[in-house]
Amino acid sequence: MKEKEFINIIKDITKSGYIGDDCAYLKDLGIVVSQDNLVENVHFSMEFTDAYKLGYKSAMVNISDIAASGAEPKYLTVGLSLPDKINTDFVRDFYKGIKDASDDIEIIGGDITGNDRIFISITIIGTTEGRKISSRKNAKEGYKIIVSGNHGSSAAGLKELSTGQKSKFTQQHLMPNAQVSFSKYISKNIKYDYAMMDTSDGLMDALLQISRSSNVLLDINFEKIPYDKDLEKFDNYKDLILYGGEDYELVACVPQNFYVPHSFEIGKVKKGSGIKLDGEYVKNAEEKLFNHFKEQK
Amino acid sequence: MKEKEFINIIKDITKSGYIGDDCAYLKDLGIVVSQDNLVENVHFSMEFTDAYKLGYKSAMVNISDIAASGAEPKYLTVGLSLPDKINTDFVRDFYKGIKDASDDIEIIGGDITGNDRIFISITIIGTTEGRKISSRKNAKEGYKIIVSGNHGSSAAGLKELSTGQKSKFTQQHLMPNAQVSFSKYISKNIKYDYAMMDTSDGLMDALLQISRSSNVLLDINFEKIPYDKDLEKFDNYKDLILYGGEDYELVACVPQNFYVPHSFEIGKVKKGSGIKLDGEYVKNAEEKLFNHFKEQK
Repeated sequence: MKEKEFINIIKDITKSGYIGDDCAYLKDLGIVVSQDNLVENVHFSMEFTDAYKLGYKSAMVNISDIAASGAEPKYLTVGLSLPDKINTDFVRDFYKGIKDASDDIEIIGGDITGNDRIFISITIIGTTEGRKISSRKNAKEGYKIIVSGNHGSSAAGLKELSTGQKSKFTQQHLMPNAQVSFSKYISKNIKYDYAMMDTSDGLMDALLQISRSSNVLLDINFEKIPYDKDLEKFDNYKDLILYGGEDYELVACVPQNFYVPHSFEIGKVKKGSGIKLDGEYVKNAEEKLFNHFKEQK
Repeated sequence: MKEKEFINIIKDITKSGYIGDDCAYLKDLGIVVSQDNLVENVHFSMEFTDAYKLGYKSAMVNISDIAASGAEPKYLTVGLSLPDKINTDFVRDFYKGIKDASDDIEIIGGDITGNDRIFISITIIGTTEGRKISSRKNAKEGYKIIVSGNHGSSAAGLKELSTGQKSKFTQQHLMPNAQVSFSKYISKNIKYDYAMMDTSDGLMDALLQISRSSNVLLDINFEKIPYDKDLEKFDNYKDLILYGGEDYELVACVPQNFYVPHSFEIGKVKKGSGIKLDGEYVKNAEEKLFNHFKEQK
């Protein structure tokens, strides 16, 4: 997939200021909207998951996009396409998974069609009342960089799944949790502009996007990044932490004196551009992200 | 696809009052939301259409859902999944088609992923300000039944396409137009509750849904249904008109004295249940709809 090339074309044709962000913020309606696809044998394999877990994760992936904006996840619609062989139990379990992922979210509709493999496209709507909405353009010099939790677990889980193992990491890969409370605390309490993204495509990817959109240097201290110590049994565990995707944690750049409960400060926003890791500029981040992405396919 | 069975399960699991309607009406936000899937070789074939026409029709199918509710189509997001072999021209033309279908609608985002065949899931948001929103439950005894235009052309076009022909009917099948003006006139001017649906699954299907949801008899006069006279060259042209889908016209039940420009009165809402056609109860409508549906696959 030439995804980035396609997105540039779409921006060019549509002249839409919304394209390219995780969420569209519709100020006139007081809502944010996001849509994410999950395709069988691209994003997941039924060899490793089941209908319930798939529903749960599909909802969480979308809830995480809304959480990243600071809005309150409220309504979702499910575009689902299923092979003819799939039975009613699959549909029941899939929707149970969605429902269990989202106590406060109402499933308001969607469409169900036939296909040769499972395709899921969920659209989620969040409300912005009483919330300050984030933008990846809002990281400012002097801000601190915080994350909501552990990184690398999901990528480790994916590796283990492919060798037939089951562990806490495989569980975290199959049933991630969106960081709704972290998002809610910040967006309801912060007075200043701030940047926030989820780390669905990896922590480094989110940092790069924020750095570029805000024209700042993000100076990261690796040892401050929280991770499960059991990751150290993996040869390349530092890469899993930095480049592994699908942890669905949040990374935010907020004023130094703004306290966020259960957050981990991993660095500072400075004048300049790019990412520094323990004092060294990160040079091959794009390539590593790309390779990680390829590996997952 | 056991679509109806699946929808009952989804209603049961989600306990959502929104499931099963074409649009979800979110009163708290003043919006209606709808999502529709289009799957390659199920809903369309690249043998007969092209990227531009596909984009155009994909948007129109969704715009038609909002038009049926009486709301104003405003924003859409596009979940798109494409085979790797597809090039940038395809993406450009597809989005041009969407844009040309919808001058007043902004494309606000979506997701683009890899797949083995083309899959499109569009979510559309309409606003309800200054509009009275329809419900298929609102057909009342004494109301007249009106349609916005010709039926049967799209189904005739599909038949012609499969034999390699090109005509005004194939054009109407590939590039239908949602009846936005008809919808706007009614929803901005009507004072009473009314029923409205689009005829995407066939005129008879829409009539059946309204009849059931409103617990009324719909008494239809076949000769009042507008259609292109050139349809008469097809052996079963009456079936095309009644059961053929994808005309994306609107059918509405409104008070007898409510004037709607460019509308065609095709019958009356009466006490009772089911559909009468020229005085006779329609007995095998479900089966005919089902057969038509199968034929299209």
